[in-house]
Amino acid sequence: MLDNPRSPRVRAVAKLSKRDARTETRTFLLEGPQSVGEALAFRPELIVELFGTPTALERYPAVSAAAEAEGIDVQFVTEPVLEAMADTVTPQGIVAVCRQFPTSVKDVFAAEPKLIVILEEVRDPGNAGTIIRAADAAGADAVIMTGRSVDLYNPKVVRSTTGSLFHVPVAVGVELAGIVDRCREAGLQVIAADVKGDDLLAARGEGVLAAPTAWLFGNEARGLTDVDLGRADRALVVPIYGHAESMNLATAASVCLYESAFAHRS
Amino acid sequence: MLDNPRSPRVRAVAKLSKRDARTETRTFLLEGPQSVGEALAFRPELIVELFGTPTALERYPAVSAAAEAEGIDVQFVTEPVLEAMADTVTPQGIVAVCRQFPTSVKDVFAAEPKLIVILEEVRDPGNAGTIIRAADAAGADAVIMTGRSVDLYNPKVVRSTTGSLFHVPVAVGVELAGIVDRCREAGLQVIAADVKGDDLLAARGEGVLAAPTAWLFGNEARGLTDVDLGRADRALVVPIYGHAESMNLATAASVCLYESAFAHRS
Repeated sequence: MLDNPRSPRVRAVAKLSKRDARTETRTFLLEGPQSVGEALAFRPELIVELFGTPTALERYPAVSAAAEAEGIDVQFVTEPVLEAMADTVTPQGIVAVCRQFPTSVKDVFAAEPKLIVILEEVRDPGNAGTIIRAADAAGADAVIMTGRSVDLYNPKVVRSTTGSLFHVPVAVGVELAGIVDRCREAGLQVIAADVKGDDLLAARGEGVLAAPTAWLFGNEARGLTDVDLGRADRALVVPIYGHAESMNLATAASVCLYESAFAHRS
Repeated sequence: MLDNPRSPRVRAVAKLSKRDARTETRTFLLEGPQSVGEALAFRPELIVELFGTPTALERYPAVSAAAEAEGIDVQFVTEPVLEAMADTVTPQGIVAVCRQFPTSVKDVFAAEPKLIVILEEVRDPGNAGTIIRAADAAGADAVIMTGRSVDLYNPKVVRSTTGSLFHVPVAVGVELAGIVDRCREAGLQVIAADVKGDDLLAARGEGVLAAPTAWLFGNEARGLTDVDLGRADRALVVPIYGHAESMNLATAASVCLYESAFAHRS
């Protein structure tokens, strides 16, 4: 049982809340039985270390069972050690160190995608994670995060995906201009979600979204720059019928992504 | 200038982070220039007290100007006082004490609503606030929060609405059974969003959502009870096309609400 919250091993895990440490070790932190369970179910080979308090492992027997089935040792730790390792205040007694596993852009397009999500300068971790989760739900083939977006492996992003980062391929650190070109070559129209865009409902009427599509979402406060907007084939906006000044980026993205998902299935 | 973070007046404001204090005083806390600005623009008569640091009031001159135009005094405070008053760690230098202003159920139905949102046991403040914001964006006529949902005036709910609680009427503290009856009397079908429901896309094809609708959303973890589900006219689910176990409640609600908003305008 690991019982010293100040030991080098515990500190090394705690450091994964910092991007530098994640980049250096090419690992990241998974927190809670749900996220760890998704990793065990979908990508067990990525798990480097698995830690749990005796209480939590008893409470979530499925985690212990899945780890055993995959031949992964579970290291028992005390509550103070687990708290020291975790980024969140309520890690529910289980954390894991996981290898980073970005998808290459080449692999994204090799899969002949029909629905892609591009995040350009999306900075809020909760938004990014929630969009990845919504992309997964809507059956998107991949998410591409440009270099100016938040780090995919930020603990808050990871938590907000609730496991979807293990389901949907995510490419990171790329340049928008190159990605837009690749989308066109692959036969995907690039549609920017932007307040200056045309009405999404009108676009539904015109059948615009039946074609393979890459949705481009920009910064939550400033949106897309004019240059980036110019790279897209067209821009659409979720119309505001009430008095709201704007929509939350993740909720607007969900409406757009499902509009495409439905158009592809109608 | 108020400069003592421990003075009774400052403490009375800080106490509004607790439900008891809010209920007793029938007031709540608004934080940040955006929320306070929305209150000044839409319901200035509700503002009881307005506080700001000199730096913030200089940085957001529109707030000072709007307050002056409405004859509301701005009380200058020091940074420590503002921090002591605020619930959030970054209140951006401006907070206000605002009177609670729940809409009555009678008024909700007197307005002949065509789209209503009912929240039954929605407990996460961020979800509740984001749904109110999405309801506003989608042009919903009202939101009704049953007594088992989170307090509308919880600071995190208020923040997540980003001002939409001043745009869309919200009724609180009611019983679900009575509300469902009122909806039917008013000619609204009650549709529960539930994982056991029929496919939302199929419902689009059948034209189900063209009729006036009250959407019923349940608890983020457990959903609706069978009893509550039975109260609805039918249940629909946003289909999951990928591997996501579920959708975030607020994003699923946004997809449902826009599906109705679009159906009403098609």
